[in-house]
Amino acid sequence: MCSHGFPGLRRVPENIAMGPGGEFDLIRRMLARWGDLAAAVGSDTGPVPIPPGERVVVSTDSSVEGVHFQRAWLTPHEVGRRATMAALSDLAAAAVTPRAVVLALALPEDQRDTVEALADGVGSAVRDVGLGARIVGGDLTRASQLVVGVTVIGSAPAPLGRTGARPGDSVYLTGVLGGPAMALEAWRTGEVPGRWARERFAAPRARVAEALWLAERGAVAMIDISDGLSSELHHLAAASGCEVRVDLSRVPRPEGLGWRSAVASGEEYELVVVTRGEVDANAFARAFGVPLTRLGAVRAAPAGVVVALEDGVRVDLPAGHDHFST
Amino acid sequence: MCSHGFPGLRRVPENIAMGPGGEFDLIRRMLARWGDLAAAVGSDTGPVPIPPGERVVVSTDSSVEGVHFQRAWLTPHEVGRRATMAALSDLAAAAVTPRAVVLALALPEDQRDTVEALADGVGSAVRDVGLGARIVGGDLTRASQLVVGVTVIGSAPAPLGRTGARPGDSVYLTGVLGGPAMALEAWRTGEVPGRWARERFAAPRARVAEALWLAERGAVAMIDISDGLSSELHHLAAASGCEVRVDLSRVPRPEGLGWRSAVASGEEYELVVVTRGEVDANAFARAFGVPLTRLGAVRAAPAGVVVALEDGVRVDLPAGHDHFST
Repeated sequence: MCSHGFPGLRRVPENIAMGPGGEFDLIRRMLARWGDLAAAVGSDTGPVPIPPGERVVVSTDSSVEGVHFQRAWLTPHEVGRRATMAALSDLAAAAVTPRAVVLALALPEDQRDTVEALADGVGSAVRDVGLGARIVGGDLTRASQLVVGVTVIGSAPAPLGRTGARPGDSVYLTGVLGGPAMALEAWRTGEVPGRWARERFAAPRARVAEALWLAERGAVAMIDISDGLSSELHHLAAASGCEVRVDLSRVPRPEGLGWRSAVASGEEYELVVVTRGEVDANAFARAFGVPLTRLGAVRAAPAGVVVALEDGVRVDLPAGHDHFST
Repeated sequence: MCSHGFPGLRRVPENIAMGPGGEFDLIRRMLARWGDLAAAVGSDTGPVPIPPGERVVVSTDSSVEGVHFQRAWLTPHEVGRRATMAALSDLAAAAVTPRAVVLALALPEDQRDTVEALADGVGSAVRDVGLGARIVGGDLTRASQLVVGVTVIGSAPAPLGRTGARPGDSVYLTGVLGGPAMALEAWRTGEVPGRWARERFAAPRARVAEALWLAERGAVAMIDISDGLSSELHHLAAASGCEVRVDLSRVPRPEGLGWRSAVASGEEYELVVVTRGEVDANAFARAFGVPLTRLGAVRAAPAGVVVALEDGVRVDLPAGHDHFST
């Protein structure tokens, strides 16, 4: 009847100090894949190591089969990795160092054999982001639909929010947009997405290292692109109480893709970055192999408004998508 | 396509600094119900206030419609409250003070109108446990099945685990067992559960204050009863590397219910408590209106074994349930 919490226990399944049971076997199989990446604890709670004096923040993100992805699109490894990267992307936007990852897995009975691949995907995301983050616990339950819920906890001396933008600040964008929208469009029309577009959807990377680099160089507010650049710019303008004026024709995108499609593309996990003063975009590109593009600036008024330009000319900005809208 | 993280923003919906969209409206409706219980932040990450010098622990728990409960059994308010209490119960077992609650809600479209009641249930659990905990964020997504995932973060100078039991320690139990098993049995056979049994299933209380009280009075290990007392005693014995010898005929239970049914009853959210020395059970009962019962003691060997007694005579102990077993 119940779900089972799993502390990140020991890596050798035989050594795991848990009672018997089929569900615990599944948990053991996950822990066996994670090895030292799972923290050794002895309770339903997992330890979160926080350096003295740092502030702690938390974020959670859920990936649901049939809502966020179709099983035909992604391997179980990609499902696990992508869900974890999505959660870590929220920590990136706060410019905090990830400390702990907690996995809540709702697994259909007929997908039990994917548990190792899912675990490997989660583990590969945590390993790739690095910085010492570990998997410290979770919960496994049966369900009719696969739900991968990932909660991440991070810390920093001064986490960033999305409220920090002030008139005169610059607005930047990391990366190249449009891939996820292109992949989704291909899948929806029965085509095979191109390799780049598919990778952008299936294997995003949370910009954690990039965010920490930017926070050291004048970033005062960040937001990650879950719902499309257009939507996030509105959030940023609303939260900061400023006008955000951006030239969207500057948004890096694949040849042949219009900027309107690129700025509506969701689940990009790139960052919109507001900086006090300019940032050396070339140094960023050299450090991370990803472009950093100046889109525009923050202005005083009207508050909460995004002014979109196309080659300097004001244009209407499409809204972001929202799957609960009718 | 995407789920939406919701920071615990301001309580007046009109003041919430978020962009437009139907899903954000649902989030606003939840935030409106929580008021000051939701922390004011401005990003996808929520702040977790940790007193200096304390260690941080995290736990997560998911409640799935059709797995953990049927919609006919519980009101949406009870679903939200119960899921939150279940997660808080893990913090209780670590004897830590809850600091932050994060809600991951997967909501079927036809249950949109339950969002206020669900939010109220979550809020009432957080309020009742008190101690300053707040709702600092979450995630809302569409799904075919209701999943209420609650992650809780707490802290204490020295959180307890389940590994701390040593030979000579005493083993106690809080509360009266059997209610959830009786309620489930009634529902399964088409009957109406008795009021006490239904309340025990539908409206559990995390024993947070009780655990903090016990930790100040010699508790060295605790575990909360998710899977039934029998199962948890096995975990405790395994984790501590000790023998746990308990007289199960002492387990408080309703008249007419055998101890075997009481110790197999899951989702009780009572605590098994290991103490160094004896605890004043009368003082506990006076403080909390709940019995504290000494079940037995911890012995050196054989490690990992639970020895069950019935009025002092050794008997076989039934295993706990496991919904992934066949």
